[in-house]
Amino acid sequence: MQPYAEMSNEELLALKKQLSVRYKDFQNKDLKLDMSRGKPSVEQLDLSMGMMDVLSSEDDLTCEDGTDCRNYGVLTGIKEAKELIGDMMEVAPDNIIIYGNSSLNVMFDTVSRSMTNGVMGCTPWCKLDKVKFLCPVPGYDRHFAITEYFGIEMINVPMNDEGPDMDLVEKLVAEDEAIKGIWCVPKYSNPTGNSYSDVTVRRFARLKPAAPDFRIYWDNAYGVHHLYDHDQDHLIEILAECKRAGNPDLVYKFSSTSKISFPGSGIAAIAASRNNLEDIEQQLKFQTIGHDKVNQLRHVRYFGGIHGMIEHMRLHADIMRPKFEAVINTLEKELAGLDIGKWTKPNGGYFISFDALDGCAREIVAKCKKAGLIMTKAGATYPYGKDPHNSNIRIAPSYPPLEDLIMAMELFSLCVKIVSIDRILAERKMAAAENE
Amino acid sequence: MQPYAEMSNEELLALKKQLSVRYKDFQNKDLKLDMSRGKPSVEQLDLSMGMMDVLSSEDDLTCEDGTDCRNYGVLTGIKEAKELIGDMMEVAPDNIIIYGNSSLNVMFDTVSRSMTNGVMGCTPWCKLDKVKFLCPVPGYDRHFAITEYFGIEMINVPMNDEGPDMDLVEKLVAEDEAIKGIWCVPKYSNPTGNSYSDVTVRRFARLKPAAPDFRIYWDNAYGVHHLYDHDQDHLIEILAECKRAGNPDLVYKFSSTSKISFPGSGIAAIAASRNNLEDIEQQLKFQTIGHDKVNQLRHVRYFGGIHGMIEHMRLHADIMRPKFEAVINTLEKELAGLDIGKWTKPNGGYFISFDALDGCAREIVAKCKKAGLIMTKAGATYPYGKDPHNSNIRIAPSYPPLEDLIMAMELFSLCVKIVSIDRILAERKMAAAENE
Repeated sequence: MQPYAEMSNEELLALKKQLSVRYKDFQNKDLKLDMSRGKPSVEQLDLSMGMMDVLSSEDDLTCEDGTDCRNYGVLTGIKEAKELIGDMMEVAPDNIIIYGNSSLNVMFDTVSRSMTNGVMGCTPWCKLDKVKFLCPVPGYDRHFAITEYFGIEMINVPMNDEGPDMDLVEKLVAEDEAIKGIWCVPKYSNPTGNSYSDVTVRRFARLKPAAPDFRIYWDNAYGVHHLYDHDQDHLIEILAECKRAGNPDLVYKFSSTSKISFPGSGIAAIAASRNNLEDIEQQLKFQTIGHDKVNQLRHVRYFGGIHGMIEHMRLHADIMRPKFEAVINTLEKELAGLDIGKWTKPNGGYFISFDALDGCAREIVAKCKKAGLIMTKAGATYPYGKDPHNSNIRIAPSYPPLEDLIMAMELFSLCVKIVSIDRILAERKMAAAENE
Repeated sequence: MQPYAEMSNEELLALKKQLSVRYKDFQNKDLKLDMSRGKPSVEQLDLSMGMMDVLSSEDDLTCEDGTDCRNYGVLTGIKEAKELIGDMMEVAPDNIIIYGNSSLNVMFDTVSRSMTNGVMGCTPWCKLDKVKFLCPVPGYDRHFAITEYFGIEMINVPMNDEGPDMDLVEKLVAEDEAIKGIWCVPKYSNPTGNSYSDVTVRRFARLKPAAPDFRIYWDNAYGVHHLYDHDQDHLIEILAECKRAGNPDLVYKFSSTSKISFPGSGIAAIAASRNNLEDIEQQLKFQTIGHDKVNQLRHVRYFGGIHGMIEHMRLHADIMRPKFEAVINTLEKELAGLDIGKWTKPNGGYFISFDALDGCAREIVAKCKKAGLIMTKAGATYPYGKDPHNSNIRIAPSYPPLEDLIMAMELFSLCVKIVSIDRILAERKMAAAENE
């Protein structure tokens, strides 16, 4: 394969002509493909149908400690659920609060509470002139949406293969008291699929923030979402590491079963130090009498424990793995050696990240859409939807059936090629004009 | 029965001696009775066990419109649930957002959102020097706790038989722009059990608040919670009445199935004008991708419609009615004619309100506790836990079994008598000292 940059204008124009014929063919197929969100597929949902059978009218909905799950109460979740989710999150049950159906909601509430009532006695953020968050980029659009909603200024921090640029993170949090948090998806990150290295996690645990109410927002959404039995990423457990580093209160860790049982009908949790949890509990009691304990019990009885959950995740992996491989193989087949894009090869999670030539992402996504393929909006992986390089595209392989996915990635690759040719030609023209 | 106030000191002292013997007997029984909260009883929970059978792994969890309830999405709730809860709340499905398991949480979030981001474009409350809420008293402690949590100043408004003192409400909201809301439990009110009259509801719908972001927080928690087939209270539907009055955006209405299906595992909702709902939806989308649709579907399939829910509420009534009657009959038997207390006789809801002689409530509750009976904390029915008359006590008959309840109310009446005698004697002593 010859890199496009080494081809002459004539060669590129001839190639574009061929590609455009193929693109027209795609347009004529009247496709309706959606790769915009990390939604589990129907086959994955079917895996959890047994959830519907574990509690029947014949069952006793009572916890080991005598709690009747059907009635009011138990603000922080039933003990059994704390044990299950504690094992999943690699923390002790005492360091867990079980919430409702959405970790996004838990994160939103955590920021909201900090805005109105403050963190562990500190001034509520709404009383401050300026509040800032660090945002490793590319990252998760719904994280950035929360901070934008609350008027929190977002500062981009580049991601590299080991995680966020820690030199920059250390410097910024140490010198600016307005920086109150950093959004992290540390394992099988959204969208890169990479995991933070040991060095990165250790540096996180040893941050010396100027703000006493600075917290790491550690969204470990994909902790057990491996693709392989071998080749699994390993992430150092952050709570324990913070404790070892003498910074026990530095982190809020979030997770949920959304992509384990049913999205939207799972259980979510926060894990943190007892100091942090007591601060949260003192406030949470004004918000609710307790979350859905019957659903907590349903999860406990269905999975039976962490081993059952891990087995269940193997079934998810069996469905996800061929999809990830199809995406990566198609990209390899279509784009390898052309030097018009780079992509990640994750061992887990829900996303593959694609970096096009600078200035091409929006155009590629638009061109896909015109042929019936919806990708995540270009720019979505950056705060305010603004990718300064207009280069990053998030690929979400989970939802479409395998055969659709291969076609979608062929179409995607085709759009990458056409838009890249246009870009290269336009740049050459500009350069020529400048040299005149 | 001779009123205590007409008895001589000697008669009262002799009576107290007798009563104290009985009190000692109670203390020796080592009772553990809890009447502190409006918790459904085990028998009531058993009524809904069929909920656990309506969705099995053999069932299709798809909505009529094709929505797969197992996956992400549908921010405002599935159509079928909006219809069911719409019928329950007497509003059109389009005027409903279905939430998670707790209307308390919906109310908290509504105030929280107003604090951080404001109501329909108005200044966020956290940016204002002063925010105030009107609180009809006696009222619901968890309402007052929310406003206290957010630092909102609470102003007491007396309740009478027709609802809050509307002369005062009209005057205050018209003259003070800092007043942003009023907490209402309009039907089978917590704790009085009374319902707002037609005139009261019509005056509510015609309020002319100085603040454009003033809203009535209409917590219709007990809309279908009657005790009798006959003798049901009827409440004018507030949304429609506000519309008729030309104030469509004046009210947020809240409700849930917490005391219909399982407390803590039900579904909650807000009903409001489309203007209000669009404002909420624009913000809600930052907080969650959607609430638990499987549980929404479970409720829809179980009740089958509003008729099924009404039938189900008859079964609740069959359990609740004897308990209310036992409380009221015991109070009648023990206290009628003594002029040391007044109590309400509701046709529904979860509470009976008891007004002791001024200055006696804390002492009565403390005396009950010393003999093993936990009542709702005296003062709880007032903002900041401060009942200026130290007179109101909330009676919650739902949780204890019937036989316990009768004993509890005998003990309660006994404590009322003893504390009232002490109070009358102390007042006579003070009056005598003043006359010397």
